[in-house]
Amino acid sequence: MRHALSEPNHPQIVFTPSGRRGRVSPGTTVLDAARNLGVDIDSICGGRGICGRCQVEISPGTFVGVDTDESHLSPIGSTEESYADRKDLAKTRRLSCAATVLGDVAIEVPAMSRVHKQVVRKEVHVEALHVDPAVRLYYVELPDPALGATIGDRERLLAALLAEWGLSPLSVDPHVLRGLHRAITDGEGSLTVAIHDEAQVTAVWPGFRELAYGVAFDVGSTTVAGHLADLSTGEILASAGTMNPQIRFGEDLMSRVSYVMMNPGGEHELTRAIRETLNQLIEQLCAGAGVETSDILELTLVGNPIMHHLVLGIDPTPLGTAPFTLATTESIRMPAVELDFGVNAGARVYALPCIAGHVGADTAACILAERPHRDERVQLLVDVGTNAEIVLGNSHRLLAASSPTGPAFEGAQISNGQRAAPGAVERARIDPETLEARVKVIGSELWSDENGFAESISTTGVTGVCGSGIIETVVELYLAGVLSAAGVIEARPGSDRIIADGRTFAYVLMDEPRLLVTQNDVRAIQLAKAALRAGVQLLMDRLGITQIDEIRLAGAFGSHIDGQYAMTLGLIPDCDLGSVRSAGNAAGVGALMALLSVEERAEVERVVRTVEKVETAIEKRFQERFVEAMAIPHTSDRYPNLRRVVGLPTTPDPTRSDSRRRRRTGASRENP
Amino acid sequence: MRHALSEPNHPQIVFTPSGRRGRVSPGTTVLDAARNLGVDIDSICGGRGICGRCQVEISPGTFVGVDTDESHLSPIGSTEESYADRKDLAKTRRLSCAATVLGDVAIEVPAMSRVHKQVVRKEVHVEALHVDPAVRLYYVELPDPALGATIGDRERLLAALLAEWGLSPLSVDPHVLRGLHRAITDGEGSLTVAIHDEAQVTAVWPGFRELAYGVAFDVGSTTVAGHLADLSTGEILASAGTMNPQIRFGEDLMSRVSYVMMNPGGEHELTRAIRETLNQLIEQLCAGAGVETSDILELTLVGNPIMHHLVLGIDPTPLGTAPFTLATTESIRMPAVELDFGVNAGARVYALPCIAGHVGADTAACILAERPHRDERVQLLVDVGTNAEIVLGNSHRLLAASSPTGPAFEGAQISNGQRAAPGAVERARIDPETLEARVKVIGSELWSDENGFAESISTTGVTGVCGSGIIETVVELYLAGVLSAAGVIEARPGSDRIIADGRTFAYVLMDEPRLLVTQNDVRAIQLAKAALRAGVQLLMDRLGITQIDEIRLAGAFGSHIDGQYAMTLGLIPDCDLGSVRSAGNAAGVGALMALLSVEERAEVERVVRTVEKVETAIEKRFQERFVEAMAIPHTSDRYPNLRRVVGLPTTPDPTRSDSRRRRRTGASRENP
Repeated sequence: MRHALSEPNHPQIVFTPSGRRGRVSPGTTVLDAARNLGVDIDSICGGRGICGRCQVEISPGTFVGVDTDESHLSPIGSTEESYADRKDLAKTRRLSCAATVLGDVAIEVPAMSRVHKQVVRKEVHVEALHVDPAVRLYYVELPDPALGATIGDRERLLAALLAEWGLSPLSVDPHVLRGLHRAITDGEGSLTVAIHDEAQVTAVWPGFRELAYGVAFDVGSTTVAGHLADLSTGEILASAGTMNPQIRFGEDLMSRVSYVMMNPGGEHELTRAIRETLNQLIEQLCAGAGVETSDILELTLVGNPIMHHLVLGIDPTPLGTAPFTLATTESIRMPAVELDFGVNAGARVYALPCIAGHVGADTAACILAERPHRDERVQLLVDVGTNAEIVLGNSHRLLAASSPTGPAFEGAQISNGQRAAPGAVERARIDPETLEARVKVIGSELWSDENGFAESISTTGVTGVCGSGIIETVVELYLAGVLSAAGVIEARPGSDRIIADGRTFAYVLMDEPRLLVTQNDVRAIQLAKAALRAGVQLLMDRLGITQIDEIRLAGAFGSHIDGQYAMTLGLIPDCDLGSVRSAGNAAGVGALMALLSVEERAEVERVVRTVEKVETAIEKRFQERFVEAMAIPHTSDRYPNLRRVVGLPTTPDPTRSDSRRRRRTGASRENP
Repeated sequence: MRHALSEPNHPQIVFTPSGRRGRVSPGTTVLDAARNLGVDIDSICGGRGICGRCQVEISPGTFVGVDTDESHLSPIGSTEESYADRKDLAKTRRLSCAATVLGDVAIEVPAMSRVHKQVVRKEVHVEALHVDPAVRLYYVELPDPALGATIGDRERLLAALLAEWGLSPLSVDPHVLRGLHRAITDGEGSLTVAIHDEAQVTAVWPGFRELAYGVAFDVGSTTVAGHLADLSTGEILASAGTMNPQIRFGEDLMSRVSYVMMNPGGEHELTRAIRETLNQLIEQLCAGAGVETSDILELTLVGNPIMHHLVLGIDPTPLGTAPFTLATTESIRMPAVELDFGVNAGARVYALPCIAGHVGADTAACILAERPHRDERVQLLVDVGTNAEIVLGNSHRLLAASSPTGPAFEGAQISNGQRAAPGAVERARIDPETLEARVKVIGSELWSDENGFAESISTTGVTGVCGSGIIETVVELYLAGVLSAAGVIEARPGSDRIIADGRTFAYVLMDEPRLLVTQNDVRAIQLAKAALRAGVQLLMDRLGITQIDEIRLAGAFGSHIDGQYAMTLGLIPDCDLGSVRSAGNAAGVGALMALLSVEERAEVERVVRTVEKVETAIEKRFQERFVEAMAIPHTSDRYPNLRRVVGLPTTPDPTRSDSRRRRRTGASRENP
């Protein structure tokens, strides 16, 4: 057929939006014409009018020199009528496998009819999701075996896949052989086949079938989230989250690594616990969406390095001590059965690559979602948790580091602190004169001085202050002149809001219940903020820049924090406020992107290899940057007393011996 | 170094037996010289003087123009002294990784020092075993990671394997990542790595290691045999056999398939039972040889198609009914963990290819062991069990078929029949005058008329007659004139050895215990023999030959049967008796060959693809050939009464209608 494309008296066909065009023999199906011209049109059933994936539209009128008329395609026949009876087929749509070319036509291929498509999902913060998953379904009909011809079921299947789809060479998962004959028999010779990476037959079903789902996991140390997606449409069918059950082995990452160090083999317990939870999430997601777990063919996994290793069953202890060695810096592909996932026996897991010992696959996923590597503008991408992962750069150069912020931003180690949950104070405004505060509490849309506030929080009450609440309180106290740039709460004679608290002062944020912000709380926030900001400054130093174009705050903390407050506190460098935004659940989005697209996988692998890793712990300037960042908003030079407050020489001396002393002294701050 | 090979003033080196030669820079190690010249020398440790695999000998004197003197190699240094202290190093041997070339030398590479070697094992019936297993061990020393350099353990390992061994690209089994860091730490950076197919890292151990074992399984319907071999030397360390536990689900293959058909999912029980037994065999073999099961890195599997499928967990029911479809006609490679084998987590299983629905991987293994495809002489290879697998041909063309002999040759369905086991009559000689018999019994070297016979069998006594015993009795009766060519036991007035048995006669083989050979027994042997011989004749017809050059009788029956008796009975065609021999456990030998050599795997795969399958059940001439083969020794034409005896028209008519009738009539014989 290909040779007929150039016959001058044959009808012309042009496809949009690709613009590909050529001449085809009259009677050629639009699908065959598209394939000959290299136009991307989807199909599962291989042109049998069953799957409806190959829908196209005719573009009447004259287009790029082609006079199109509806009569230039064959009239709607029984195949299309039968499909339209079973499923909806819009009046303007034709099945390209059934409609044949009779005269010149312009054909539009809608986005959904492409194998490689982009879809827009409001649930996720990316402009468009690529949909070209690692697994695809192919429908085939096996010819009857000739009597006495000895050919195995596997070989019949491979012959059909070669003849109908041109797929070769293919390997066949051993487990597929176990059900192959029954599938052929039950389907009376017709089968749907799942093929991974255009290379491996991973599942078979009798007859025609178009269900293929995937799950993207974001495994955090505290919470675990999963998203169930339709692999053919990119639709997100369900999302669910739950606590990481490993918390019973230790609240933070390092205490879990310690558990493993103290209990050799303990990683197996941690692995078993998290895998059980992931399986429960799979069941919950499937139940919610009415999907069979056996129709899950693909899973992706992101997480910090320790979670990544523990889910995969890899001993995480090397990540607990210098030089913080990863088992691998590459992505990992493996059968899902190896991780005990209760999904299709042929399903595959793709774990995104980790970047460094402290910068994991979750950060790689954030990069994939926020794409700093695609832009000339310098982007700062920060994911704040117990550690802050920091990515800085643009299309020319990308740096990454991790900084130990500690749990203060999550409300831990704060007098009345708590996690961001209903009942937690998340916003605070303080009158500079009276020092009276009004607050917002998670679970209510009202401020505390608005009518109906008390009723609106009656189920939870006010239970504490979360990270964003404490940050806003600290910033408001600073703006009200109660807090010095060095972070000292100062007395305010005549105000009952500032009270003595031992040898320091505390601020009374609320009377009922009584919520205090103490000097120690301010110090904890200062230390966390300084750790993060020092990391950012280091990367800016390395990149040789003083100005950042875009700031993205990822994760739950990034969603709650107000950019203006973050900047006033000095958590992030100065930047046009309009260019600061939350990146939402960027890690989960990146996991979804990799679930739906092999192109995205290739992209994240490519980018991660180019990322320059900065190990803050061994950077000479980190302590200096840390001290500068202790001040509110920043720079110790403007606040000489701060050096004394945090226990550093008051006169910075750039000589080598002095800077060594400074580092030594500073080092003691790390382990207060 | 390679460029230096052509310098005319450099010393010459010549290797034997390869004959490769060249010039090398003075000071080049013999191993490096060998590698540059493409000479095959083994090494695990990569030239560190640890493994001793690279031993060579100097050939003093003048050889092919090279004047060799011992002083033309560097003197024995500390590396070789240290090796000789730890292990034996023959006086004539040098470590090629330590000895350097100082002047012209001729170097002999002993067989054991080659990666691809041939070894002679008296345990197996092949001239030489190829030893080039799918898995090899490689020793590497990882350079220390630079402080702050972020590189994963996997990437460090791969870099070392590339630098030291030139291996790339390699995949790494996910399970290897789980223990990789600990292995690196425990080995202080030195590791031994198992690599399958020069492509997959499947295991790692700390430090240097040279243990690599494999198990070859031959799974029969009645018995299961396993052989444990050293993968580096080809030495067979232990062999063991046991009953197939599936017997409790049915004595013969078809009754097991029926069990699965009647009990959907029953294949899982059968699979579990056989895998448990294989695991017990693994443990037994390892315990016997003092080998750890975790050092088993490779397994091979042969068996008839139904056993092959059941071990692999594949539903065998398609093999129970026409068209007897195999799941695959190709070999299968899979991780051993998928078959629940308790061996190294990275071990691989290789299942040899099946040939046809009734001709399994055991026959493929027999072909590999007996190599009919390598010879101009036409070989008949017969493996007799409940089915007889028949292979006929030579290097130009090879045919295979299966014929349903039934269990008579195994002593079943015979009055006093039993399996070949101690106590069974296995040989018989009958005096043509007196009709008195003398016999040999399994477990004794004496004939029954020799002194001490009774004592020699006192532990078992005489318990019955096995297949070879009944065949020899039938042949002796025929030679004594008691049995007609049509297989009728005739009266012998005056002899108490022939007695009336209902309307027929029986022969009294022994009085104490009383062992009879009845007319029915003779018929059973005739039917079994006719099925086998008809299959052979069909293949001869197809090949257009009337004479066979070589006959090989495989399996336990083939080991017991006397070629002369088999020929007199007409079980096999006429052939020079010197060219008839037992092939012993050819299936097991083939499994071993595939265990030890990837070349042998390639060979069996190549041959099996060329084998022409003959389906006896649908061959027009089978019934005719079957009837001809009922006669003793053969050909009904000479014995016209036979046609009547077995219920066929007495006048063969070659017209089409008659031959159709003949077939129809003959078909009723199949299900008497």
